[in-house]
Amino acid sequence: MKTLSDVFEHTLKDVYYAENAILKALPNVIESAGNAGLKDALKEHLSETKTQVATLKKVFKSIGAEAKGEKCDAIEGLIKECEGVIDEAKGAVARNAGIIGCCQAIEHYEISRYGTLREWAKALGHDEAHQMLGDILDQEKAANNKLTALAVESVNKA
Amino acid sequence: MKTLSDVFEHTLKDVYYAENAILKALPNVIESAGNAGLKDALKEHLSETKTQVATLKKVFKSIGAEAKGEKCDAIEGLIKECEGVIDEAKGAVARNAGIIGCCQAIEHYEISRYGTLREWAKALGHDEAHQMLGDILDQEKAANNKLTALAVESVNKA
Repeated sequence: MKTLSDVFEHTLKDVYYAENAILKALPNVIESAGNAGLKDALKEHLSETKTQVATLKKVFKSIGAEAKGEKCDAIEGLIKECEGVIDEAKGAVARNAGIIGCCQAIEHYEISRYGTLREWAKALGHDEAHQMLGDILDQEKAANNKLTALAVESVNKA
Repeated sequence: MKTLSDVFEHTLKDVYYAENAILKALPNVIESAGNAGLKDALKEHLSETKTQVATLKKVFKSIGAEAKGEKCDAIEGLIKECEGVIDEAKGAVARNAGIIGCCQAIEHYEISRYGTLREWAKALGHDEAHQMLGDILDQEKAANNKLTALAVESVNKA
């Protein structure tokens, strides 16, 4: 990697890998959640994630690159942490609170990556990619806000 | 882990481990950064991180627990990703942009964890811990904003 364009494409492959890893991991997290509101929020995010993978394919196409993932150590670690919490949390209160915390860490990872990618797309003059990455960023922020509300309003009070 | 108190203490150990891992990793990142403003921002964050470790010891003390780390898979993955970018980025533009992106991912991880911990401290009635965790959260947000400004104003334009 030498140029901003190289690091942009590298990071795009990184989030493409990350979104696909989240698609694989989420069903187990949904299964483990013991709160209806949390299950629903995660199911909705699973469906959003599928759309985001499709949008990322369009982003690759818009810059003339092949949609391809590249192993992302960060998401592997974040998912491993979430699975560890599910394994270790025997009580429903700890499990639900722990799941929300880990999912918010994943959301924040995505928020940081899409925030960076969106700005790089702008700097590189990739207007279409800039728009699509901004749309995904807004979705991730909304998903994170929903988890905060769930935590503050229900789980932490339980 | 059964209760919110259990998951709070577990996550506190997790961020304590994470901050210590960041302390070890940052000198190499500072060395690899090829932009004076970025080097300065990272040096300042290294010094802030030392203070945060000391504050976390006080948080443990305030809840009557021993300051102790617990392996945090998420930070291990995030740091590995940052080291990978440093290895692969041969050009200064790609390296600086890549470093900022990875450091912002780490900042976002911390923002999510301290945001969660602060709310849990509040729910558990740990007023002193709530205040201290909120102070660290504000520092992490400020550090992240500084990196955004650096990226938008200088590195991405280079």
